[in-house]
Amino acid sequence: VAVYTLVAAEDIAALLSRYDVGTLVSAKGIAEGVENSNYLIETTGGRFILTLYEKRVDAADLPFFIAVLDHLAMKGNPVPRAIRDRNGFQVQTVAGRPACLIEFLPGVSVTRPGRSDAHAAGAALGRLHWSLADFRARRDNSMGLPGWRHLAEQCGTAIDKIRPRLAERIAAELAFLEQHWPAELAHSIIHADLFPDNVLMLDGQVTGIIDFYFAAYDIRAWDVAVTHAAWCFDDDGAHYNAARGAALIAGYEAGFGLSHAERTAFPVLCRGAALRFLLTRAWDWLNTPADAMVTRKNPLAFLSRLDFYATASPKTLLGA
Amino acid sequence: VAVYTLVAAEDIAALLSRYDVGTLVSAKGIAEGVENSNYLIETTGGRFILTLYEKRVDAADLPFFIAVLDHLAMKGNPVPRAIRDRNGFQVQTVAGRPACLIEFLPGVSVTRPGRSDAHAAGAALGRLHWSLADFRARRDNSMGLPGWRHLAEQCGTAIDKIRPRLAERIAAELAFLEQHWPAELAHSIIHADLFPDNVLMLDGQVTGIIDFYFAAYDIRAWDVAVTHAAWCFDDDGAHYNAARGAALIAGYEAGFGLSHAERTAFPVLCRGAALRFLLTRAWDWLNTPADAMVTRKNPLAFLSRLDFYATASPKTLLGA
Repeated sequence: VAVYTLVAAEDIAALLSRYDVGTLVSAKGIAEGVENSNYLIETTGGRFILTLYEKRVDAADLPFFIAVLDHLAMKGNPVPRAIRDRNGFQVQTVAGRPACLIEFLPGVSVTRPGRSDAHAAGAALGRLHWSLADFRARRDNSMGLPGWRHLAEQCGTAIDKIRPRLAERIAAELAFLEQHWPAELAHSIIHADLFPDNVLMLDGQVTGIIDFYFAAYDIRAWDVAVTHAAWCFDDDGAHYNAARGAALIAGYEAGFGLSHAERTAFPVLCRGAALRFLLTRAWDWLNTPADAMVTRKNPLAFLSRLDFYATASPKTLLGA
Repeated sequence: VAVYTLVAAEDIAALLSRYDVGTLVSAKGIAEGVENSNYLIETTGGRFILTLYEKRVDAADLPFFIAVLDHLAMKGNPVPRAIRDRNGFQVQTVAGRPACLIEFLPGVSVTRPGRSDAHAAGAALGRLHWSLADFRARRDNSMGLPGWRHLAEQCGTAIDKIRPRLAERIAAELAFLEQHWPAELAHSIIHADLFPDNVLMLDGQVTGIIDFYFAAYDIRAWDVAVTHAAWCFDDDGAHYNAARGAALIAGYEAGFGLSHAERTAFPVLCRGAALRFLLTRAWDWLNTPADAMVTRKNPLAFLSRLDFYATASPKTLLGA
């Protein structure tokens, strides 16, 4: 969690002069996500986030992400839009990196979500999917099933340093998923990373959904599965909280809803979600020095979830 | 530059409930300084900085720092005070660390200071010294002359990895300073670290002086020398900007002033300032992994300054 690229206040002030947002009052580098450099900026006109896109976000994808956010905001979802400068441009170059000045949204991320938080998150995800039903732009999901195999191959047997025979376990899981993946389910643009970190809340209401940099076209119900894996476990993945899972799904039903086929396939989708984060966390674990100043997230927290999902029934996961 | 300790939003909300500052609206970890963990917090009542003190700040020193800030604020200096909770306490425990909720000050740090910026900084430092003339609490300066020898011994000959024969050069400089140090000059509580980073400005005015965690009792004019070394060089220490130096000193004269003895000793004080930052940066350089996510600051930028100060006249440095 760090600011990667330092931007001089003078350069921020010069950037702001291209917009109708007032003049610079304060700028603080913030530790928002590990993928980009972010500044919380106050001007005489309001508050904004300045994001510089570092290597993990492909600049070619920015117009897609911006279009998704504009579409969602237009339909009333609490997402941060990229501000247009006086010439109508939403993407700038700052310190040699593509950068956007983005709306600031109030709210904080819950660290220990309760049932009502999960319900609110599920409902917000449902409204997101509802709003995206008529969105036509596409982006392939590099973090979908073919991406997991690729990532597993990149990790190789080095992954066994995290736990003995983990490579073997992952290979078996991939084989299972490739055989049983419900590719025929409805597709949509999905958020694909709706962890509590990416949901801002105030007084139990969702005030912001952020970090759309994994948004892509994929199985819509997989987005619900990702959110389930992200919100419904305690003790670093060790314990499933069934009441919270049921609340999340009830919220999603209120916002959009799952078909019979999606409900039947839900355990398999959840296995895919658990495997996706097991693999990306394992990759980061193997490629981040132990003494680096970023917090390495424990990959095994998602192996626990994978174990759980492998034997769970739809009813256990969905609550009804 | 990083947030070291993660604090859950729920825990920040609980902390705020001890104060009369409204309820939590937003909390972002910010990259302010490398010594502490900082959150920029918005409540229904205003904006605040929550600082958690990590290992470099001794909790036993906090009452001293807080008293300095209260004294300076009472006299009208733009410094951030620690807020009192409803029971009158300014120091709390958050995530096992001593922590303060601190006033938020507007303004940004200039990266490329001009003459007028240097004048404003000098004047602000002068007003600081004026206000501290009747402040009676004391704190020894662990980063004063005896501290430099200690630090040089801790670095040992490993420092030659930064530049061949640097240890020898430092030993000679220490011997010179120990012989010529003007210990008889007036003492005061000093800021001791007034880099541009620690001065917030808006429209050419100083709106904030921050980061008093090196404040201590020492030669008052040494504080001016530190500020001179910090503000008056370009190109990573390679070039002295005489006009900016003169502006800084003119500002200081307007706020407080240098005696004849202080002017005469100024080159020696500046050598001490350059050596202090050469040594602490060298120490950090030798003890920070090259791939860590903190930016290592180049120690040799202060060797260049030391070289310059060793032959400079008071007139060159003071401008008159």
